[in-house]
Amino acid sequence: MMRSVLLAGAQSPWLRERAPRLPFVRRTASRFIPGEALDDALAAAAILSRSGIATVVTHLGENITDAAEARQEALLYGEVLGRIRDAGLPTELSIKLTQLGLDLGATRCYENLARIIENAGTSSTVWIDMESSAYVDITLELYRRARTRYPNVGVCLQSYLYRTAKDLAALTPLGPSIRLVKGAYPEPANVAFPRKADVDANYFAVARQLLGRQSQQAGLRAAFATHDSALIDQIKLHAQTIGMAKSAFEFQMLYGIRKDQQMRLGHEGYCSKVLITYGSAWFPWFMRRMAERPANMFFVLRNLVGG
Amino acid sequence: MMRSVLLAGAQSPWLRERAPRLPFVRRTASRFIPGEALDDALAAAAILSRSGIATVVTHLGENITDAAEARQEALLYGEVLGRIRDAGLPTELSIKLTQLGLDLGATRCYENLARIIENAGTSSTVWIDMESSAYVDITLELYRRARTRYPNVGVCLQSYLYRTAKDLAALTPLGPSIRLVKGAYPEPANVAFPRKADVDANYFAVARQLLGRQSQQAGLRAAFATHDSALIDQIKLHAQTIGMAKSAFEFQMLYGIRKDQQMRLGHEGYCSKVLITYGSAWFPWFMRRMAERPANMFFVLRNLVGG
Repeated sequence: MMRSVLLAGAQSPWLRERAPRLPFVRRTASRFIPGEALDDALAAAAILSRSGIATVVTHLGENITDAAEARQEALLYGEVLGRIRDAGLPTELSIKLTQLGLDLGATRCYENLARIIENAGTSSTVWIDMESSAYVDITLELYRRARTRYPNVGVCLQSYLYRTAKDLAALTPLGPSIRLVKGAYPEPANVAFPRKADVDANYFAVARQLLGRQSQQAGLRAAFATHDSALIDQIKLHAQTIGMAKSAFEFQMLYGIRKDQQMRLGHEGYCSKVLITYGSAWFPWFMRRMAERPANMFFVLRNLVGG
Repeated sequence: MMRSVLLAGAQSPWLRERAPRLPFVRRTASRFIPGEALDDALAAAAILSRSGIATVVTHLGENITDAAEARQEALLYGEVLGRIRDAGLPTELSIKLTQLGLDLGATRCYENLARIIENAGTSSTVWIDMESSAYVDITLELYRRARTRYPNVGVCLQSYLYRTAKDLAALTPLGPSIRLVKGAYPEPANVAFPRKADVDANYFAVARQLLGRQSQQAGLRAAFATHDSALIDQIKLHAQTIGMAKSAFEFQMLYGIRKDQQMRLGHEGYCSKVLITYGSAWFPWFMRRMAERPANMFFVLRNLVGG
């Protein structure tokens, strides 16, 4: 019945006008999104920065199918970069290629991407997020094109895909920046590991591959984007075993999720980064996460309640 | 701000308890989903049947990643088929393979599918819906396997994919039942036509291909699932031009959308079918539709308001 409520809420002018003023609405939202405005995101980045935690900022939006709107996103990131520079924040960017018009065509999308990367110059890295499996080929192709020209661009790989170890091997000669995640889109069993245990095992296998290559390949940078403490411990131990410095790789987590762990990693001397999202498009994003993997809802709720 | 309301609604026990009793909640939902229960769906099917409109029933659910739950869906469709038979309704089934556990593996999914098809026997056709492009290969593979053994199984093809004309050509020798749709998942431009005009043009091209083969290939059955009146007119005219009987193919539309058109097609002597959805999982489905293509929201709203 919760579902009926949500739907009704969307269509009721009465609720639409009144509910945003209710304290619980603001309270709930502010736990994992600092706010809808860039100011909110940068204020959160500044606070984290004072605790020694660097950040990655993303403007929510995906599958934009209007060319002008996609271009607008690229311009908007230019503004974000200017603000980051002015404030002297240790903040990078994360973008989705479908936010830059990938559904409209690769050429235009690449133009938007290149504009952002050039705008970032040497001051900030631009992380390209990975989307569902249909986007992997074209995303890696555009990443390859960008990385050949620019040093400050990274890409995300997903450990639930069978292909990921091979993709990493193929990218390695480029000296890529890789953010490793588990993956959150629904995928068929012929494309992605169905069992969570296999996704985790592959995460660690690819993480070892990444850390192992890092000493041999100039320019390679490894970012482990996971909240899974067991995996984080495995990676820390493995890095120590092969004699890597704590500062040679990094961990990334979402704003508001596992704050204790974010702080602890920083105190231990690891590079701990927090991904901050902002923008008005957060609700579809959130709902899709919930609809795709109900477990996410429990995870978020647990964090909301558990703190 | 509507988004904040929706999110808050989901988490407020106060709203969760009270809102479902509000008249506007029931009114809004009942326009395009007869109800959450099978009884509601079958009652709607019976009413439509009295107006000469046949139906296709689907239990909402997708990307089920629990094997027991996926098997439960297959058993549930067994119950649906029994009820359809008892009531003597001209009702077929539509299922999604990810509802039957495709994300867990093809073998188990096929077992669930075969169980439903066998249960349907000769009395009802089981339509396999098509999902995002990552699922197309495996879905067509399982369809092929099923169609080789059973006559009463159809599959959906999407005109926004570049590959569709080729897929249809490859399936034709099997004597397939094909439901043609435009496609509703976000897809990259290297996989799907980005422009609506091209999707429409390809819809008509594949429709012609389907109708053209129908006279030559035994067992081939064409169902055009679209609300687009321009396309429907084009297809009617083309079928007439090549001398096809009005009853040789069919149109399918969603419950509650373009009712006038559904009735008119029936009165004109065409086979007009309505897809009825039921189940408690309708909200994520609805939200995903909205999140993916905001245009859908306007479409639904326009229909809700315009009747």
